[in-house]
Amino acid sequence: MINIKIIIEYDGEKFHGWQRQPSLRTVQGTIEDVLSGLAGKCVQIEGSGRTDAGVHAFAQVASFNWYDKGCVPVQKLQWVLNRHLPQDIFIKDLCVVDEEFHARFSAVGKTYEYCLCASDDRSPLLCTRMYMVPSSIDIERMKLGAQALIGTHDFKSFMASGSHVEDTVRTIYNIEFFVKNLLFDDDGDVNKLSEKQVANNTGKRLIKIQFTGNGFLYNMVRILTGLLVDIGLGKKSVEDVPAIINAMDRTMVEHTAPAHGLYLKEVYY
Amino acid sequence: MINIKIIIEYDGEKFHGWQRQPSLRTVQGTIEDVLSGLAGKCVQIEGSGRTDAGVHAFAQVASFNWYDKGCVPVQKLQWVLNRHLPQDIFIKDLCVVDEEFHARFSAVGKTYEYCLCASDDRSPLLCTRMYMVPSSIDIERMKLGAQALIGTHDFKSFMASGSHVEDTVRTIYNIEFFVKNLLFDDDGDVNKLSEKQVANNTGKRLIKIQFTGNGFLYNMVRILTGLLVDIGLGKKSVEDVPAIINAMDRTMVEHTAPAHGLYLKEVYY
Repeated sequence: MINIKIIIEYDGEKFHGWQRQPSLRTVQGTIEDVLSGLAGKCVQIEGSGRTDAGVHAFAQVASFNWYDKGCVPVQKLQWVLNRHLPQDIFIKDLCVVDEEFHARFSAVGKTYEYCLCASDDRSPLLCTRMYMVPSSIDIERMKLGAQALIGTHDFKSFMASGSHVEDTVRTIYNIEFFVKNLLFDDDGDVNKLSEKQVANNTGKRLIKIQFTGNGFLYNMVRILTGLLVDIGLGKKSVEDVPAIINAMDRTMVEHTAPAHGLYLKEVYY
Repeated sequence: MINIKIIIEYDGEKFHGWQRQPSLRTVQGTIEDVLSGLAGKCVQIEGSGRTDAGVHAFAQVASFNWYDKGCVPVQKLQWVLNRHLPQDIFIKDLCVVDEEFHARFSAVGKTYEYCLCASDDRSPLLCTRMYMVPSSIDIERMKLGAQALIGTHDFKSFMASGSHVEDTVRTIYNIEFFVKNLLFDDDGDVNKLSEKQVANNTGKRLIKIQFTGNGFLYNMVRILTGLLVDIGLGKKSVEDVPAIINAMDRTMVEHTAPAHGLYLKEVYY
């Protein structure tokens, strides 16, 4: 019996999240079904953590025990798995790891990325993968708000109601912003823009926010993003942040950013 | 009665193409239903041309007659339309035009963009909007193939079988390539790549091909792209192109690139 680690990319749109659930299409359930079919017996995998319905992953990590004999050999397993998995899941890497390795318990940190699109126009071609926010959003204010969130805090105010976790203290190491002007095409040709677009300077901006921490509570990244968006739009102030944290009360932040803008980017071991 | 021109962005994924069809969800049908509801009588719109099921548009153009009195005034029409349209359609611009203007008959040219992703790995997060091709694809060969397609030709070999168009002569003014290395993240941090990725240099490349011409036959851009992909993969040679054009035989190019990688980018008047 060998212990295997896999790195998985998935498009969360058509899944009811990571965790296996009876009669619902989930990422864990889909991968387990394929592995169990190959092994001829039940194979269970452990993810680094759950992702909600609609949340995507560039690099989710999972581990499982594999019976190398009389079954698909490990050298071929990644290839065979990808042949059997649907188009919206892909195993990017597969390797044998120490028997002590456990995708969840061995993880020491994670990076999640949230993608916003700042625009006054709706964009059908962007809105399925990003959260559209008004172009007036103030990124510098959001960065100040983010600074106030970094560190070790009890993040109970940022946990979905109904969750039952004893220890709600987490450490956020870093919140990084990457901003890209989508006004200019890839060829950078400003002449292709309409006069109206240039005059109003209402180009679309992609705002990526990368949250790195030792762990995140249920819905925490989406609630943190909701707060940062509210700060960027002037609905909340940077000075409110410590009080929101200290309140340890979920109702302090009403705004949960939607799942479809969130990507699990990396898990650290 | 006034004549109105609209510019429309849509995500083609969940539509059975542009053209109205009984009991199927189409872009034209959806917009006409909203306009007819607002007008209280049947309103028909004319698109610059049809797009197939699954094809997207950054800027489709349509025109229609509007009854300004006793109905939604033209100043508010764009806003009201966008309020009533589903998330996957957005009216980017709306203006009053001469009564002679007709979205189809007045059009003098169009640009379509086809998006390929060159990668040896499937990518669930990219493959819904781009056509995945092997990383070994030779872009310089594709460019040479494109040169051989530019000009005025009878493009009968590049029209979907079953189409009934008398005149299959069209002029392609230009085929432009834009290549972007997706190996590097937006932050350009090569350190975030795995050693394996760097060593193999098997980064994902986005290849955009922009076709500009006076008009395109049914499926023509997808069949042209299929041929260019075959040339890039060495399955066809650049020298084959004149013979394929001269054959005026659809069966000369078996490969039709899928709809989900195609975008109507601009219509010229």
